[in-house]
Amino acid sequence: MTEHSLWRFSRAIHRAINEGQTDQLEEMLDDDVDWAIYGPIDMFAFLGARRGKQAVLEVIKQIAQAVSVHKFDRESVMLSENAASSLMRYSVTPAKASKPISVRLAHFARFEAGRLVSLRAVMDTFDLVEQTLGRQIHLPKIA
Amino acid sequence: MTEHSLWRFSRAIHRAINEGQTDQLEEMLDDDVDWAIYGPIDMFAFLGARRGKQAVLEVIKQIAQAVSVHKFDRESVMLSENAASSLMRYSVTPAKASKPISVRLAHFARFEAGRLVSLRAVMDTFDLVEQTLGRQIHLPKIA
Repeated sequence: MTEHSLWRFSRAIHRAINEGQTDQLEEMLDDDVDWAIYGPIDMFAFLGARRGKQAVLEVIKQIAQAVSVHKFDRESVMLSENAASSLMRYSVTPAKASKPISVRLAHFARFEAGRLVSLRAVMDTFDLVEQTLGRQIHLPKIA
Repeated sequence: MTEHSLWRFSRAIHRAINEGQTDQLEEMLDDDVDWAIYGPIDMFAFLGARRGKQAVLEVIKQIAQAVSVHKFDRESVMLSENAASSLMRYSVTPAKASKPISVRLAHFARFEAGRLVSLRAVMDTFDLVEQTLGRQIHLPKIA
């Protein structure tokens, strides 16, 4: 049985972020990959939508400059032949801080011929913003 | 082929939120269901972790008082025998506002014997907070 593309992709992206080695990631990205990590692009320019291999490699380079992945737990995972989704808890250390921050992220990925053609990720971005600022943002009680 | 529990659960929860009819939902919740929607509980008391059928029914009642679901699109879905994950885009109308707000939500659900035993949901909560406030929160550019 062949290894699912998710595991190769996971190794490739973490290697790219933590070691700056993008060769495996580059092999795994479809030329026309459709990519989006939803979140506040004013604070983190590497969030938002990208299209195509070069744009995604550029984003990964920006992420690698901003954070290193300290550890991650995959809390849920679903696999089908050409798709995968995971609920993950990441602990990352920002380049400009010493204290790790932790963030929950859900991703949905599609693969074709072993290459990533689509990735969508949702994060608990309010928590991410507060941890990055190192302080709470006062919110009114709505409900 | 039996209908996947996700579709019954989806109908039951939307019926509970929009029509206040919780009978179908009640049937579908395991007595010991493990539930969490991650997000700022200071602003929305119905977010956070809950345990057990009564606690989840209470949360759904609170959600029903706070919003009605205008529409939703399921952008990705993955199903296995006893589990499901979806990436969804919700358009909801808050009870205290006339303008709909839209939010992306990813959920991971597990079922046993047709009943929900676990649900985890991640939202783009910063976007949710800004739309609810009706204004932008100024953020420093970090990366």
